[in-house]
Amino acid sequence: MSLTNAPGLRPAVVLLSGGLDSTTVLAHAIAEGYAAHALTFRYGQRHSHEIVAAQRIATTLGASGHAILDIDLRGFGGSALTDASIAVPKDRSADELTHGIPVTYVPARNTIFLSFALAYAEVLGASDIFIGVNALDYSGYPDCRPEFISAFEALANLATASAVEGRTRVVIRAPLQQMTKQQIVTFGTTLGVDFSHTVSCYDPRDDGAACGHCDACQLRHRGFREAGIPDPTRYAVTPAELR
Amino acid sequence: MSLTNAPGLRPAVVLLSGGLDSTTVLAHAIAEGYAAHALTFRYGQRHSHEIVAAQRIATTLGASGHAILDIDLRGFGGSALTDASIAVPKDRSADELTHGIPVTYVPARNTIFLSFALAYAEVLGASDIFIGVNALDYSGYPDCRPEFISAFEALANLATASAVEGRTRVVIRAPLQQMTKQQIVTFGTTLGVDFSHTVSCYDPRDDGAACGHCDACQLRHRGFREAGIPDPTRYAVTPAELR
Repeated sequence: MSLTNAPGLRPAVVLLSGGLDSTTVLAHAIAEGYAAHALTFRYGQRHSHEIVAAQRIATTLGASGHAILDIDLRGFGGSALTDASIAVPKDRSADELTHGIPVTYVPARNTIFLSFALAYAEVLGASDIFIGVNALDYSGYPDCRPEFISAFEALANLATASAVEGRTRVVIRAPLQQMTKQQIVTFGTTLGVDFSHTVSCYDPRDDGAACGHCDACQLRHRGFREAGIPDPTRYAVTPAELR
Repeated sequence: MSLTNAPGLRPAVVLLSGGLDSTTVLAHAIAEGYAAHALTFRYGQRHSHEIVAAQRIATTLGASGHAILDIDLRGFGGSALTDASIAVPKDRSADELTHGIPVTYVPARNTIFLSFALAYAEVLGASDIFIGVNALDYSGYPDCRPEFISAFEALANLATASAVEGRTRVVIRAPLQQMTKQQIVTFGTTLGVDFSHTVSCYDPRDDGAACGHCDACQLRHRGFREAGIPDPTRYAVTPAELR
């Protein structure tokens, strides 16, 4: 059932990449009774599979709206996700996966994404902005940590006309904040998420199959394995080749 | 003389709209000895005159670089500057000009602009971000107030890899913060700014002539008058018609 234009529901903005985490957050926001407006960015990713995935997910889950914005982060460079001259790392060890800031870090990405979400929220009259950051990300990405999210919430309430005039009190909701990938897989499964629609891989094949070797593939597959839930991902490698 | 690739200068990012305020800030940053990298946005403004002005200004003043980013704020609507269905107000009284949030307010604009500036700064290895907010703006735009700027600075130092790893301490510089338009005109003049290159009008004629009636034209013209400096702006109306 679609919630499009459902009367009486509180509007919210949900950042949706088309990955496992943000899809679970969208399902959660809708289950909580929000009229969820998904927001997705084309930001110079090397592939568009996740945009297509996000569109399918927003429709399937019954988002009340879905905005896809083009923003250009390629001009700045500095990340393996937006700069073709930097290689996506493969087959890193468990220790490497959870320590240090990886080259897939995109400068100020979540600051930029949340800023647009704030603009969208103000136009919609929404107070709530959902983002799928989680415990696993904290070790690597500075703009996924709880103190960053809190600082953005403080900023948001000084930044917009609706907040300053007292019409809204902006709340940044990060419901996965304390969860591991295993817990997110379990949580999303209970919410009825079809994870076969989601895309995590940083470096998929042209046909969309996940590489199975990048950080995102490894963390994703391990999440399913540890949750004891079959991994529905279509990989370019055999199950035996997955770490 | 161009400062392009000048060795030994500290890099900085300067938000440049092509208007009177941000142009003065760029001149100030260069005079202070920074290698200033200007950052301009095409964000669905009704007219592109200010983009052309920004390019000319960056070249003339000797910016070390100039990035022009396309971002789409039209999809959200909600502002007379990005939504053709909302009229730009004309001939408002002095009281109206300095009270309340005008319809030319663009939701979360400075949050978005500063977020991109932060990304640019990180890639450049710059600690300093310059923005031309000033006292006059405070009354109308929430995201021009000193408390907003301070909150963004706090966020920035939690948001980026370079700040979190201790390589940079991000500082948001707003050198016009306490200045009136009159003082900015005087300051810019002492810095040698050619204000005839700058564009303030919210609703220029197709040939680029300023309308003379919108808030920006009125505040600009009054600034020159009060500073006792001839206004070099090409208006679509006669001097006698300016308020």
